[in-house]
Amino acid sequence: MTLNNTQYRLAARPVGIPKPSDWAQTHEPTPEAEDGQFRVQVDYLSLDPAMRSWMNAGRSYVPPVEIGEVMRAAGTGTVLDSRHPDFQAGDTVSGVFGVQRYAVSDGKGVTKLDLSLAPAPVQLGTLGISGITAYFGLLDIGRPEAGQTVVVSAAAGSVGTIVGQIAKIKGCKVIGIAGGAEKCRLLVEELGFDAAIDYKNGDLRAELRELAPKGVDVFFDNVGGEILEGVLARLARGARIVISGAVSQYNSTGPGHGPANYMNLLVSRASMTGFVVFDYAPRYHEAVAELAAWLESGQLQSREHVVEGGIEAFPETLNKLFTGENTGKLILAL
Amino acid sequence: MTLNNTQYRLAARPVGIPKPSDWAQTHEPTPEAEDGQFRVQVDYLSLDPAMRSWMNAGRSYVPPVEIGEVMRAAGTGTVLDSRHPDFQAGDTVSGVFGVQRYAVSDGKGVTKLDLSLAPAPVQLGTLGISGITAYFGLLDIGRPEAGQTVVVSAAAGSVGTIVGQIAKIKGCKVIGIAGGAEKCRLLVEELGFDAAIDYKNGDLRAELRELAPKGVDVFFDNVGGEILEGVLARLARGARIVISGAVSQYNSTGPGHGPANYMNLLVSRASMTGFVVFDYAPRYHEAVAELAAWLESGQLQSREHVVEGGIEAFPETLNKLFTGENTGKLILAL
Repeated sequence: MTLNNTQYRLAARPVGIPKPSDWAQTHEPTPEAEDGQFRVQVDYLSLDPAMRSWMNAGRSYVPPVEIGEVMRAAGTGTVLDSRHPDFQAGDTVSGVFGVQRYAVSDGKGVTKLDLSLAPAPVQLGTLGISGITAYFGLLDIGRPEAGQTVVVSAAAGSVGTIVGQIAKIKGCKVIGIAGGAEKCRLLVEELGFDAAIDYKNGDLRAELRELAPKGVDVFFDNVGGEILEGVLARLARGARIVISGAVSQYNSTGPGHGPANYMNLLVSRASMTGFVVFDYAPRYHEAVAELAAWLESGQLQSREHVVEGGIEAFPETLNKLFTGENTGKLILAL
Repeated sequence: MTLNNTQYRLAARPVGIPKPSDWAQTHEPTPEAEDGQFRVQVDYLSLDPAMRSWMNAGRSYVPPVEIGEVMRAAGTGTVLDSRHPDFQAGDTVSGVFGVQRYAVSDGKGVTKLDLSLAPAPVQLGTLGISGITAYFGLLDIGRPEAGQTVVVSAAAGSVGTIVGQIAKIKGCKVIGIAGGAEKCRLLVEELGFDAAIDYKNGDLRAELRELAPKGVDVFFDNVGGEILEGVLARLARGARIVISGAVSQYNSTGPGHGPANYMNLLVSRASMTGFVVFDYAPRYHEAVAELAAWLESGQLQSREHVVEGGIEAFPETLNKLFTGENTGKLILAL
């Protein structure tokens, strides 16, 4: 069976927000599966802020995507044909298949999905890397205790919505930081956050002072920049800052914005710890089991923002992450 | 007995390095000791970089020194007369007596010194707050393991000289960062550091790359600024940064210099933790006992820089800390 593939490859290292010319759309036949391989039709692509950091050259927690390479992306898909003993045509699978219509896989890092558990987009988000990131970042690094105050930035995003809900399950007071009144409404009225701060239209420091009078015990940061500085100014003694991302910095063209008031770590005897979810791969199943149970019991709500655009909509859909247009997990349906 | 006191009080909040006009020298009779009090003649003043931060207004780990107050400083002295049951005339004592010739104390935070153990300047430095800071900051927060690479900034200072020597005792490779060839020579030739980087005359990042090819496991930072950024760029996986001070920032008149590349914490799954030695007060005796044993066995050398200037030399002697003129513990003999 000949499968004509469509792919998005990195054509240039972006300066700032990716431009259309940073991408090259290519078409080529998909190779046949060899022994130990199978072919997948990609159905849903996971779009995540970290993808922007993979487009930059230089040392990071994963190698950069090279110029000319198919853009790296996680997704779910359907096995079309297989010469791999563990995968059969018709299986629904999840893996890092890249921004392309079809992928050839040797099964490494690929898991079979049980769609009776949840639809594929939920398994890509809340039961996928976003949910697992929220779970281990908050519970293992942030270590919140009941009654403590937890703040999360990019709170209406794929990770933030779950961080806040888990913190509520654990008995914490939860404050979300998000951009725009509608996102803030969602957090408080639909997802059960105690409060939300609209950083675009409010005074972050003044609102934090009022909402967290005893200071912030755990800050789960996806944003960096001025938001990180604002929370550093309001830490409780012994606070833990989880550095999970820095979306405000990924498109930065300058040297980056370091937290000028980082010495509040000393004043508050606080820590700031970097966290990469991939290190928890041997324990993913623990997170997925507990997240699925919370979904089942209704304690956790999953939010997906599925764009039905097809692969051609990839460049503009990715950029929604950087203009703040998405709520919950951003997914492109191919 | 009438004791005419000489004191240095804070006259103005300094902008940058303290100027003579930021101080007011005052003279007044020392009050008699009341019940539960005693009077001390201050013999040695401990001069520490953190004193500069106490001169700024605003929230910190201790309240600021107010305008008109006697400048806060630790010191050692001799009890002159006492109406306190635990202290007698002739006792040698250590405490936060302030920048003045005589002090009246109620004994809180004051300890009696046994001069047979070590001379007073050593007890003010290596067996005092500097040594205790090095001990708990390195061992409790930095947690170095034998064979790991430890870097310390302001390495020729009162805390840095001890951090590096303890790290050597623990079997680590130790790299000191200091300003000037003479300080670097001292670290390697006299104190047993494996290497020293002269940040004033070298390329910190290039030298670190060469000296720490597998990255830096523990960074004990007293300096901040570009030195912190330079080490952030060379972290090993799982590195621990101990934030003990930021002497490069204390005289800063701008908003401060945050580490622009703090996202290396994420890349390296590293942590940056603020540390205040006062929190360890209940365990000071553990540190002093072990430091004294290392001094006794010759594994640890104590370096004091005693200025025999009398109290009038206080303003210019303090500033040696910010111009990099001192080596080891800076002490003013009154």
